Amino acid sequence: MANEIQDDLTPLFAALADPTRRAVIQTLGTGPKTVSVLAEHHDMALPSFLKHIDKLERTGVIATRKKGRVRTCHLHPRALRPVQDWLAQEAMRWGGAMDRLAAHLDAVDTEKKI
Amino acid sequence: MANEIQDDLTPLFAALADPTRRAVIQTLGTGPKTVSVLAEHHDMALPSFLKHIDKLERTGVIATRKKGRVRTCHLHPRALRPVQDWLAQEAMRWGGAMDRLAAHLDAVDTEKKI
Repeated sequence: MANEIQDDLTPLFAALADPTRRAVIQTLGTGPKTVSVLAEHHDMALPSFLKHIDKLERTGVIATRKKGRVRTCHLHPRALRPVQDWLAQEAMRWGGAMDRLAAHLDAVDTEKKI
Repeated sequence: MANEIQDDLTPLFAALADPTRRAVIQTLGTGPKTVSVLAEHHDMALPSFLKHIDKLERTGVIATRKKGRVRTCHLHPRALRPVQDWLAQEAMRWGGAMDRLAAHLDAVDTEKKI
């Protein structure tokens, strides 16, 4: 029911409410990276960076695999689907104002498919 | 630049990372409501509820107007636009992975309609 969906959404939105974590998602969008490579882009101690990685992993947005001493991160974009669904659902409620936005997003979708 | 956009996004995502605040957005999607009417739907003390209203107002997602003792809340959905843009931008990066997801979700949608 609605409440269950809402409960899924809270940790997802919380995970996105941080520039480091959004940057990690952005970087992983081009393909898997090791934690070391990801950490290079961020000016913080490794333990702090690992907390961000763990938070993303707990939401399912990324998955990590360890091979020896190397931990590789993969993006699982479908885990963000509830966020997209929530926005789309709200946009339907807003009606006119958001119709223009929907048209824009459809255009983006179409561009991807071309 | 990218960093400015990121800074806009953090308080927006943080505002959405709470079921009460998302419920307020949902309720206001059908039209303006007074704080009292909105608060009726939530089982919490009024000062706690007002903190949620203030947090939403600070992001620009809602605006409030006071007339006498009555405070009315209005939704400003275009304030959520950076969130939609961020998702659309990331989805473009994901490319293939999201196309498969879209195909899967279309299939799910079709199942639901049958």
